[in-house]
Amino acid sequence: MYVSHLECSKCGLHLEPHKIAQLCPTCGAPLLVRYDLAKVKASFSKDALARRKHNLWRYRELLPFQDETSIISLGEVMTPLIPLEKLARSLGATGLYLKDEGLNPGGTFKSRGAAMGVTCAAELGVKAIAMPTNGNAGAAWSIYCAKAGIDAYIVMPVEAPSITRSECAIAGAKLYLVNGLISDAGKIIARAVSKNKWTDASTLKEPYRIEGKKTMGLEIAEQLGWEVPDVILYPTGGGVGIIGIYKALLELREIGWIGDKMPRLVAVQSEGCAPIVKAWEEKQAASEFWPDSSTIAFGINVPKALGDFLVLDAVKQTGGCTIAVSDEEVLHDQAELARTEGLFICPEGAATLSAYKRLLNSGWIKSGEKTVLLNTGSGLKYPNTVRVDVPVLEPSEDIPG
Amino acid sequence: MYVSHLECSKCGLHLEPHKIAQLCPTCGAPLLVRYDLAKVKASFSKDALARRKHNLWRYRELLPFQDETSIISLGEVMTPLIPLEKLARSLGATGLYLKDEGLNPGGTFKSRGAAMGVTCAAELGVKAIAMPTNGNAGAAWSIYCAKAGIDAYIVMPVEAPSITRSECAIAGAKLYLVNGLISDAGKIIARAVSKNKWTDASTLKEPYRIEGKKTMGLEIAEQLGWEVPDVILYPTGGGVGIIGIYKALLELREIGWIGDKMPRLVAVQSEGCAPIVKAWEEKQAASEFWPDSSTIAFGINVPKALGDFLVLDAVKQTGGCTIAVSDEEVLHDQAELARTEGLFICPEGAATLSAYKRLLNSGWIKSGEKTVLLNTGSGLKYPNTVRVDVPVLEPSEDIPG
Repeated sequence: MYVSHLECSKCGLHLEPHKIAQLCPTCGAPLLVRYDLAKVKASFSKDALARRKHNLWRYRELLPFQDETSIISLGEVMTPLIPLEKLARSLGATGLYLKDEGLNPGGTFKSRGAAMGVTCAAELGVKAIAMPTNGNAGAAWSIYCAKAGIDAYIVMPVEAPSITRSECAIAGAKLYLVNGLISDAGKIIARAVSKNKWTDASTLKEPYRIEGKKTMGLEIAEQLGWEVPDVILYPTGGGVGIIGIYKALLELREIGWIGDKMPRLVAVQSEGCAPIVKAWEEKQAASEFWPDSSTIAFGINVPKALGDFLVLDAVKQTGGCTIAVSDEEVLHDQAELARTEGLFICPEGAATLSAYKRLLNSGWIKSGEKTVLLNTGSGLKYPNTVRVDVPVLEPSEDIPG
Repeated sequence: MYVSHLECSKCGLHLEPHKIAQLCPTCGAPLLVRYDLAKVKASFSKDALARRKHNLWRYRELLPFQDETSIISLGEVMTPLIPLEKLARSLGATGLYLKDEGLNPGGTFKSRGAAMGVTCAAELGVKAIAMPTNGNAGAAWSIYCAKAGIDAYIVMPVEAPSITRSECAIAGAKLYLVNGLISDAGKIIARAVSKNKWTDASTLKEPYRIEGKKTMGLEIAEQLGWEVPDVILYPTGGGVGIIGIYKALLELREIGWIGDKMPRLVAVQSEGCAPIVKAWEEKQAASEFWPDSSTIAFGINVPKALGDFLVLDAVKQTGGCTIAVSDEEVLHDQAELARTEGLFICPEGAATLSAYKRLLNSGWIKSGEKTVLLNTGSGLKYPNTVRVDVPVLEPSEDIPG
């Protein structure tokens, strides 16, 4: 309703809004949706917002769909921002929160991007989308496409979490596995979309997914009473979430809903796949392909992200940093969080706790700084990360002891 | 805050509130929490409610905990009530909704009972609870107990969904499997609690779990603007949810928030385990143990429910009915719902769609009647219900066609 145009994130080219759009036709970089923020500022109020339903659609003045009747919804909620008091105390800290994206439809943050991407696709008359995925994005787009009546062609690595296959399959998507990584899946998709009349819904290859992810940043700001935290730690694969959160905060600042302060954004990667961390340390503006990548945090096993330069810029502009953690730390911290706070989160989310501990120890995060861990999904989707060694009783036997 | 006493559901005995309580000391039946509803009516308003956070704690005047600081929360949300317009249309009907309990922490409705049960247990100084489970309740109590610092002893059948083992284990519960059914697990727990100083958190053996489940009924009424639906279909194992929903509606009627009309409550079971349906058809007030029970909808594989007489009474008093459906129907309807509405729900939830179709065909439900399907959990917890037959590509291969 307030969209002004699409803008290339690299060369700045302006394009007409409300069209099916892929990468910049001039330079091949991702396109971003731009709004008439002066008009938003004049007509959108926190009071009006407070009376709306608690889901991502409440921020409609800052979202790219044209008509509320177009919304493709699977019952989204405002995901909780949970204080981790016990855990923080054990670390000698305070002010630690976890944004739990596991409560989205499909159990991950991917549903935000899918909800917005599919809503816009349906509004623009798209009949088929195609995408590579590490599992969760494909699952999310499959279920939203089912609701919208759009065909979804999905390619995922054979190693992707098996539950995500079930989700794609039961929702009626056209699913293929590839003996390789998401980058291999991406090449298969690129060949297929050039041959067929499909919309490429790969990460950042259409401009609407990021607008859905942006709502994580909007919610965090609203849930903290429009006072942004000091630090946000984000598990970074393709990086759409951290780019989206940064975009959200810039827009909120522009309309005067938050002050000048920005949270320091931290891109958390795995030691087995850390191209953005490497680029940051080498002061490069973009990353290089990370060979032979491997990590238990499968969602961030992305050897080269199309939006790497946007991630690096968001980190830099906010005074943030990047950090890589080990699978051992991730598994340890996933279990510790479940045991102390009752939260069974995905390994990608747990990586942010590992990063928090390191940054607290190094003094980069002060013990009283308000810090948000972004948990991207539910641990339910990763049964293999839990070792279960459990005794079996016969009905006549007793619990020992 | 407004609790007046505990009351035996069978003999009517009154007991002091705010005590650790199990079954009625006189007759062994479940105890129910009673409120001073006149006082609630005088001091609780829909306006006050509208300004509160969107989770089950918002109904605190009708809940049994004493102090808000006691709340053990894992970030609960108000779960969505989703209109199933496409699916209803394909059946020649309108007014069909699904209450999606898959968006609770842990992915099932069990978290409502656990949130309330553990909050009250913690408030009353309980140090250890023990319970038999078909998986999801044990998982839910494990995560809430972890947050509360209460020991949880859990016994579940070896056949229970394996993800629920992981949840119990990672949350630090003391977990055991049994070569048998939940009824066998129940006997092991009964022996263990009599030996140790543990609180028995078995279904209906403590009075607070049902108060958590009750909030499903409160939410449905609120989400429909305090106009109750015509029919609610509920997948019935232990039956706490349907008993809780009925209790919620009676309390709402008493405080004048809804009118005299009650929705017809339908207890949906599986043909492989239908003790309550059998009792209903034979006009019995209670059920008999169902031998050799078996169903893919594992959560409702309960051969004899302690609260069977309360379920049968709720069905009778509301002019409802009972119905058993087959595993074939359940699997078909689970897939149909995913394909048409994008909702990947658990088989127990899908059983309510199978029941809806049968009752629509028989004319027991009219095509325009407002009907709520209660989906108790996410399909993510039941990966084995989906058959996936997916082609594997080499990186150099193309999507066929």
